[in-house]
Amino acid sequence: MKLISFLSEGAPSYGIVNGDDVLDLTPLLGAQAPDLKTLIAQNLFAAAADMAKTHKPTLKFSQLQLLPVIPNPGQIFCIGLNYGDHVRETGREITEVPTIFLRLTDSQVAHGQDILRPPESQRLDYEAEIAVIIGKGGRRIKEEDAWNHIAGYSCYNDGSIRDWQVATSQWTPGKNFYKTGGFGPWMVTSDEIAPGQVMRLQTLLNGQVLQDTTTDKMLHSIPQQIAYISTFIPLSPGDVIVTGTPGGVGNKRTPQIFMKPGDVCEIVVDAIGTLRNGIRDDA
Amino acid sequence: MKLISFLSEGAPSYGIVNGDDVLDLTPLLGAQAPDLKTLIAQNLFAAAADMAKTHKPTLKFSQLQLLPVIPNPGQIFCIGLNYGDHVRETGREITEVPTIFLRLTDSQVAHGQDILRPPESQRLDYEAEIAVIIGKGGRRIKEEDAWNHIAGYSCYNDGSIRDWQVATSQWTPGKNFYKTGGFGPWMVTSDEIAPGQVMRLQTLLNGQVLQDTTTDKMLHSIPQQIAYISTFIPLSPGDVIVTGTPGGVGNKRTPQIFMKPGDVCEIVVDAIGTLRNGIRDDA
Repeated sequence: MKLISFLSEGAPSYGIVNGDDVLDLTPLLGAQAPDLKTLIAQNLFAAAADMAKTHKPTLKFSQLQLLPVIPNPGQIFCIGLNYGDHVRETGREITEVPTIFLRLTDSQVAHGQDILRPPESQRLDYEAEIAVIIGKGGRRIKEEDAWNHIAGYSCYNDGSIRDWQVATSQWTPGKNFYKTGGFGPWMVTSDEIAPGQVMRLQTLLNGQVLQDTTTDKMLHSIPQQIAYISTFIPLSPGDVIVTGTPGGVGNKRTPQIFMKPGDVCEIVVDAIGTLRNGIRDDA
Repeated sequence: MKLISFLSEGAPSYGIVNGDDVLDLTPLLGAQAPDLKTLIAQNLFAAAADMAKTHKPTLKFSQLQLLPVIPNPGQIFCIGLNYGDHVRETGREITEVPTIFLRLTDSQVAHGQDILRPPESQRLDYEAEIAVIIGKGGRRIKEEDAWNHIAGYSCYNDGSIRDWQVATSQWTPGKNFYKTGGFGPWMVTSDEIAPGQVMRLQTLLNGQVLQDTTTDKMLHSIPQQIAYISTFIPLSPGDVIVTGTPGGVGNKRTPQIFMKPGDVCEIVVDAIGTLRNGIRDDA
């Protein structure tokens, strides 16, 4: 099942995508679950699947204004330096435990929205990643149980303003410019992606492949990430873990490549789909 | 005016403190503002002050179970390395722009609650700080306008698990252990603290003064912090900026001092009050 969040007549809504058809779940399940995060928390996936059997989709995906898959996550964790080729290109070292930074909700944009290049910097870079969306929450989740805590997967573009990222030791500013992180287009529920299934992850900028890896190359696996994060803070339904980017980022290339107005950046994951964002200047 | 958030018969509430008297604002303003963050967003300070003139306080501060001053902030920014003596004791360097990391809501505890020492580490350290609570939101706020965007001030103990903080380059895990950050006891509204007023900031661990500074020694002033942060992300009412700690942290002392079960840690700010937390093991 593919689930999306979107705006319907200005109101946040969510539904099921099937090809170009969208079933709006808000009028059907909204009393129980006003948003996708609550549907996940209430574990209403079977109810949603039933609705898809008995109700006719009335909306078209291609006509919707999407929202980030989870528009209101409680926590967004990002894993840095989690593929060997990216660690090497940055000149940093592999660490025993995952490198973790946080993104803020307002730094995100939906599939189909433009990523904004701020007037403060032209060093806007892409980072292809796979987003894990937490289903069942928990503290000190064991690695062997971690797959059971995943509601689904999405594509993520961890858009970064490189000079602001390294202005001090902490990456927060460069990783949190307003509307720089693409999150979408949908969540593929975890029953459709087997635990440990190898996924292919690519960045295409204006059609040119600039990053291309497979998830078996992660240095810290998804279960290790879930176990580590939940050691320090409880995970809750709808929390997002952005699982790291491979080599090929723009600012480590020769010559460097940065995203500029008019560009189209796609994050492609074979098992999920394509997240597409245009780039424009933040006026 | 001093404003608090607390639990009243299990429900989140907020009110005005005057000595040991507390006026519960939830039944009076709750329809307009269900929580303190919304009161701030709606700029209902004058209405709250009017309520205090016409209604009798019915609760006692000393009997309340407090919540962190803002229990549900949208964003919590922390400024690292913002006092020269602390920069020196860490062996790091002064940076041109503020060092910024983020805390998560669940890492916080209220005044009177215990800070939790996790079983994973005994290196639990204190950090005395002043918290700024944003009133009027905005993007790219100018330094000269920044004071007008502050709703009030509180004390903060940026409790840190030192080994987890430096396990990688990014401090997130060590700064976000569950219930390690004290935030309280109340918000003193900004009409009672003049822009740039010098405040004295201290840590007392079991009565012993371990940190002692004044806010004129900040390397990046509060207006500079507000201007810098709001350049990359919009600030919203109820957002919190934790403005940095001075020298004297436990892990840079000889011998080192870490907080342990049974300790009482107080963050004292002359213009605000005292934030007091016991320490216990997270069972």
